[in-house]
Amino acid sequence: MPNFPEPGVIFRDISPLMQDGKAYHAATDAIVDYAKNKNVEMIVGPEARGFIVGCPVAYEMNIGFAAARKKGKLPRETVSATYDLEYGTETLYLHKDSIKPGQRVLVVDDLLATGGTISATIKMVEELGGIVVGTAFLIELTDLHGRDKIKGYDTFSLMQYSGK
Amino acid sequence: MPNFPEPGVIFRDISPLMQDGKAYHAATDAIVDYAKNKNVEMIVGPEARGFIVGCPVAYEMNIGFAAARKKGKLPRETVSATYDLEYGTETLYLHKDSIKPGQRVLVVDDLLATGGTISATIKMVEELGGIVVGTAFLIELTDLHGRDKIKGYDTFSLMQYSGK
Repeated sequence: MPNFPEPGVIFRDISPLMQDGKAYHAATDAIVDYAKNKNVEMIVGPEARGFIVGCPVAYEMNIGFAAARKKGKLPRETVSATYDLEYGTETLYLHKDSIKPGQRVLVVDDLLATGGTISATIKMVEELGGIVVGTAFLIELTDLHGRDKIKGYDTFSLMQYSGK
Repeated sequence: MPNFPEPGVIFRDISPLMQDGKAYHAATDAIVDYAKNKNVEMIVGPEARGFIVGCPVAYEMNIGFAAARKKGKLPRETVSATYDLEYGTETLYLHKDSIKPGQRVLVVDDLLATGGTISATIKMVEELGGIVVGTAFLIELTDLHGRDKIKGYDTFSLMQYSGK
């Protein structure tokens, strides 16, 4: 999907996958398998497509889900982290009470592109004392080298694409 | 949580529930039971907390999930519906290919307040030929009479609160 949402940006769209019940279930199960191996205790995902990926994983594992959200969405005390997008900057917030110190956390999103969103989310989890034991994505755009930004964190992606 | 996000608006916050794995699982299962009774074939939820409620239901039932999203978020052809909020207006969009004519759809959200969001979502599903066989919410604010706006649709809510 070239030039969406901004000219020059390719939007890898997960909506056909999630509209297909079997594909959505299978994709979720792949991440569940990964998370079980890591003894994950909490899922954190950034707004809004990270919810679509992470919430069924949390459900299947009987663990909690915490939402990393944009400004003005979380009513209680938060930590925050700002990062660069391909088309601007963004700040994410996470409730302070969402992570217990020492908790084993999986950070998920639909797409690993340049790695800005996931880095900011990791930073907030760690500020709250969580241990990021892995990161998981439906799609990884390998030419954008997002993995370089999250070196030192185990990373799982279900599908990989080259080319921006 | 009084006066969040706007003065005079009470924000019923579902994040403590979803952070608790057992509570989140049990709440999801209650909606799954409701949906199975209705032979639901597709879940539709509005951005973004509707994803948190609806995605694990879709996963557990092995059916698809379609996201009703705000402007500029969906790359393919869409239908849209505009509605009044307590603090402004909003337009939602839904991919035209997300619903098959005759498909039995459950529309979900975290909160039934005045019913604007859910009415707009229902309208888009029906424009695409879907049959809205039910609506489901974690929380219903009964004094805001959202049910009056969706009369004729079966409605399930897990928790009910009176008082604005």
